[in-house]
Amino acid sequence: MSHAPMNKTLLSQIKEPADVKRLSVEQLETLAGEIRATIITQVSGHGGHLAPSLGVVELTLALFSAYDIGTDKLVWDVGHQAYAHKLLTGRVDQFHTLRQKGGLSGFPRPEESPFDHFGVGHSSTSISAALGMAMARDLKGEDNDVIAVIGDGSLTAGLAFEGLNQAGDLGRKMVVVLNDNEMSISKNVGALSQFLSRKMTTPFLQRLKSDVEGLLGGIPKIGDDLAGYAKRYGDSVKSFFTPGILFEAFHFTYVGPLDGHNTPLMIKVFNEIKKLDKPVLVHVMTKKGKGYEPAESDPTHFHGVGTFIPETGLASKFSASGLPSYTEIFGATLCNLAERDDKILAITAAMPEGTGTECFRQNYPERFVDVGICEQHAVTFAAGLATQGYKPAVAIYSTFLQRAYDQIVHDVCLQNLNVNLFLDRGGLVGEDGATHHGAFDLSYLRHIPNLVVMAPKDEAELARMMATAFEYDGPCAIRYPRGTGVGAEVSKTPQKIALSEGELMRDGSDAVVITIGSRVYPAVEAAMELEEVGLDIAVFNTRFVKPLPEEHILELAGRFNIILMVEENALAGGFGSAVMEFLNAAGASDGKTIKRLGIPDEFIEHGTQKELRALLGIDKNGIKKTLKALCTGRTNDSSKKA
Amino acid sequence: MSHAPMNKTLLSQIKEPADVKRLSVEQLETLAGEIRATIITQVSGHGGHLAPSLGVVELTLALFSAYDIGTDKLVWDVGHQAYAHKLLTGRVDQFHTLRQKGGLSGFPRPEESPFDHFGVGHSSTSISAALGMAMARDLKGEDNDVIAVIGDGSLTAGLAFEGLNQAGDLGRKMVVVLNDNEMSISKNVGALSQFLSRKMTTPFLQRLKSDVEGLLGGIPKIGDDLAGYAKRYGDSVKSFFTPGILFEAFHFTYVGPLDGHNTPLMIKVFNEIKKLDKPVLVHVMTKKGKGYEPAESDPTHFHGVGTFIPETGLASKFSASGLPSYTEIFGATLCNLAERDDKILAITAAMPEGTGTECFRQNYPERFVDVGICEQHAVTFAAGLATQGYKPAVAIYSTFLQRAYDQIVHDVCLQNLNVNLFLDRGGLVGEDGATHHGAFDLSYLRHIPNLVVMAPKDEAELARMMATAFEYDGPCAIRYPRGTGVGAEVSKTPQKIALSEGELMRDGSDAVVITIGSRVYPAVEAAMELEEVGLDIAVFNTRFVKPLPEEHILELAGRFNIILMVEENALAGGFGSAVMEFLNAAGASDGKTIKRLGIPDEFIEHGTQKELRALLGIDKNGIKKTLKALCTGRTNDSSKKA
Repeated sequence: MSHAPMNKTLLSQIKEPADVKRLSVEQLETLAGEIRATIITQVSGHGGHLAPSLGVVELTLALFSAYDIGTDKLVWDVGHQAYAHKLLTGRVDQFHTLRQKGGLSGFPRPEESPFDHFGVGHSSTSISAALGMAMARDLKGEDNDVIAVIGDGSLTAGLAFEGLNQAGDLGRKMVVVLNDNEMSISKNVGALSQFLSRKMTTPFLQRLKSDVEGLLGGIPKIGDDLAGYAKRYGDSVKSFFTPGILFEAFHFTYVGPLDGHNTPLMIKVFNEIKKLDKPVLVHVMTKKGKGYEPAESDPTHFHGVGTFIPETGLASKFSASGLPSYTEIFGATLCNLAERDDKILAITAAMPEGTGTECFRQNYPERFVDVGICEQHAVTFAAGLATQGYKPAVAIYSTFLQRAYDQIVHDVCLQNLNVNLFLDRGGLVGEDGATHHGAFDLSYLRHIPNLVVMAPKDEAELARMMATAFEYDGPCAIRYPRGTGVGAEVSKTPQKIALSEGELMRDGSDAVVITIGSRVYPAVEAAMELEEVGLDIAVFNTRFVKPLPEEHILELAGRFNIILMVEENALAGGFGSAVMEFLNAAGASDGKTIKRLGIPDEFIEHGTQKELRALLGIDKNGIKKTLKALCTGRTNDSSKKA
Repeated sequence: MSHAPMNKTLLSQIKEPADVKRLSVEQLETLAGEIRATIITQVSGHGGHLAPSLGVVELTLALFSAYDIGTDKLVWDVGHQAYAHKLLTGRVDQFHTLRQKGGLSGFPRPEESPFDHFGVGHSSTSISAALGMAMARDLKGEDNDVIAVIGDGSLTAGLAFEGLNQAGDLGRKMVVVLNDNEMSISKNVGALSQFLSRKMTTPFLQRLKSDVEGLLGGIPKIGDDLAGYAKRYGDSVKSFFTPGILFEAFHFTYVGPLDGHNTPLMIKVFNEIKKLDKPVLVHVMTKKGKGYEPAESDPTHFHGVGTFIPETGLASKFSASGLPSYTEIFGATLCNLAERDDKILAITAAMPEGTGTECFRQNYPERFVDVGICEQHAVTFAAGLATQGYKPAVAIYSTFLQRAYDQIVHDVCLQNLNVNLFLDRGGLVGEDGATHHGAFDLSYLRHIPNLVVMAPKDEAELARMMATAFEYDGPCAIRYPRGTGVGAEVSKTPQKIALSEGELMRDGSDAVVITIGSRVYPAVEAAMELEEVGLDIAVFNTRFVKPLPEEHILELAGRFNIILMVEENALAGGFGSAVMEFLNAAGASDGKTIKRLGIPDEFIEHGTQKELRALLGIDKNGIKKTLKALCTGRTNDSSKKA
């Protein structure tokens, strides 16, 4: 390696993890620079998760140097920080295809590389998965290492705690690397994040001794001025507490904090840790966005970012349409509505920026709560608020709300509470791929009794549905797509929509498309273009998945023999399925040609939203093609396959 | 109150919580005895959650004495311990209707009483809900107390940790009572449960001082014999750690441990705690089953119990059929299969007895894991095991597996891993009611790509499906009902069923019932009885919800004009919906009369399984009635409504 030609980068010579082990400390430093440059070039040109990946370059190199990645199992929590891992595992040549259709995924995927030991995308799974791998190793009598790398933000989720609690109990050999950058996607929250910041230092330990003596002087005499005792005791204990003590309490051996940008130090520590036959937590301090000044200064913006100019960090292009995103419309409307209704509260799970609730936080700080990466708690906490007459808005991406399914059923809908769920990124999200599509929400929500489920066709309808949800005294869910609206004018005082009131977008005589949400306008456009071939297609926007506009649908079913349902959701148990169930129950499907378009029963890979919608035949052209075929087989007046 | 007539019990005079506040210490003791006797009488006659409710009689009295329950909000975690609460809130006269159709629920329900402040049934929701109530109080400028009572078992769930972490961070006034009986339903597990057992005592605190000095002597010099350092440090810290320190770390003021059967002591402490304007954790030690010897000796058996003889604790009747339960068949078959396949592992979430895996634990302790009340971790941990070639069986009740929906989607099915989910209590569970019915599983599972979903018609088919699942290299879910099988002979070497192979139970000529699971035999019986009125009904057991036996269904659809689907699951997005989607997509529903029976779009209350199935028209009689009506409207040969 040391005799590599001058014109070849070190990175281009890393074909597998073992190649990293042969590098000197100086070469590792050079390699770190090359990795950063490669990541910045790629992400600035195509977007991606920049700040998390820049933060762990040295940590990745240290892990690859100390361990035999492959034999030793490495699980990256969430996986948005795994770009260096991809570059060191034989994927340099494909790295330019990152997050593009047919190219590398933005997250570790076992199908993509034998060195991706666990598929990730959602937060806080790594300790549980690694513990499973450690138990499997022990059952097989093997002796490889298992390493989970988890951020301090991910550690706030209950799943991580469950894994930690059991890993400590079982006592199997494993390493949890706590990548502490004091961030979730936003600034981290919760009591846990506060004590992580108490680093173990010599002056700290010395101060500790007198605190302990204070503690010993204050043994509780219960019933005897408890308040005073509690204060003394609490003061002593709080100053005493360190992350080390917490993790030792969970039976982990704690090592740290270490400088997570000091590669040789980390290699030395990892090599020492290998000798320990028990759970070890290595606390590593890193800087999100490290080595790229714009990202270091604004790690939240550069967490996941679109294209930008590498020299400045400024966005290199703006939305072609110049239109605001659904996220922005949601945030602005929430503020408008909250101005006139002080019962409206907002809850986010570590994503004030991502969900558009940052403006609400600024305007109504006392009515806003960031719960951290705790979707379950977000929903049950909201249920508690709703029992007292408040109207919490819980804003969570569709894919992440999956984690609160039980809480929606059991804590919200069973009690019929006025909790309002706002599912951004419903449908296909594009480049983030299979782990992030909101492909299932209509299916996992519509079978829950009491829940009203809506999806807007555009940003103006989103605002109206929000007004509807806050006026309705019961649980509501609104799902809307990633991306910009269509330019519809959004009222600052949006009018509510009557429950289950649909909207006939255009009438026709040959067939009717019954659709919802992001698919309404593509259906309308398809219908318009089909005029050219003499087809007269009606388009009906149900607005509500539940309760469906039943009368209106019956009226349409009475007039049309060809009925096409289109949705951006799983076909199994989804919107079209709901319409079909209704038509059947109402005895209105007799003799009809009924067809559904949507997401088939498979996980959809990454690609642009446009590419994926075209692939699945749910874009304008796909809808046109299907309508044409349906209308060729049969006219509305004639009997079927005449 | 002190002049009450001799023949009246104190309990009969308690009409509302305020009445408790007027009682003397002696009267509270008498009342405790009356409450225990009332609970034992009721549960011995009708079954119920005995041991949890007996354990908190004094705690309930202390809370009602110290607080103004009503103004002050009280959230019981899970709620299976709330029988004393029901008796003290105006429900003495209805207590004999507990868990019976139309009677009192076995859990707190806001619809039932204004003193039930939050509806519960699933574990670990109380801290989050109480925090919501505390924030609501502060927003309103009110000053009531909010109290969550949570068991040490419930505290192992991630949701409880999420709530605790945020409650400490927000610092609002609230009380968490940790009801520590060292039990989940079974013996509690996890690192957390181990340090809860380190009570703060004077000798302990004195030993602590020398430990701390040891700790101070060992400040880490990183890289310098870390292993040795870690051992010294860990030893010091572990002995140092107490529950108090843990909760103080979460910014809770810790008080305890207290004797949870000493009513006056607890009243005194709660009255002191009221003065604190911050989160307080009161650690109370109780004995599950307290005051009833059989339950104290075997709290796991008496956690939830059928009828028994009060004098002895022995079951007063056995299953009328004498048949083993599905749970027992599952456990025995798992052991049989594991004997021949050492890749089979078993995972339970705190319910080795409830899920039938206790025998597996005894036979294969090294291949068994009880993860505690951690359904999310159970599934992701299983996914980790499966990546290494193991075949974990995750045995969790249908209603509780709802909590792992995201993990099933993201960690198991997206990676197509060989994790096998066994959902006991699928369908209507009976007396436990709305929070516990497994009413949604077919709907929340069938839209997940890659997942095979099965339901057996009897215990022999359960065993065969288990063999199928372990041979199939991918994720499987099998749901089966609460209760006993039908007496089918179960093979010790069950043969697998080919994927999507259904079974024609009986042929016919007038109509076909397409059904699955617990509804197969009632459909067959209905068909047999309909012979008397000259109807010839076929019954088809699909066995698989996914993949459906498509060819066989098509063949049937080709022969029958009347098709009835019957399931014990939500109609919305459920089994019948799946069959209908398929018939539609295959163009096979044309001109057919298709009807579905199942659970309508509402939460189903408690009652016996028999009562509830009759109510919903999915028992033999209901199926008969529907078939008769369908066949009256139309014969198989004639066209519809001729």
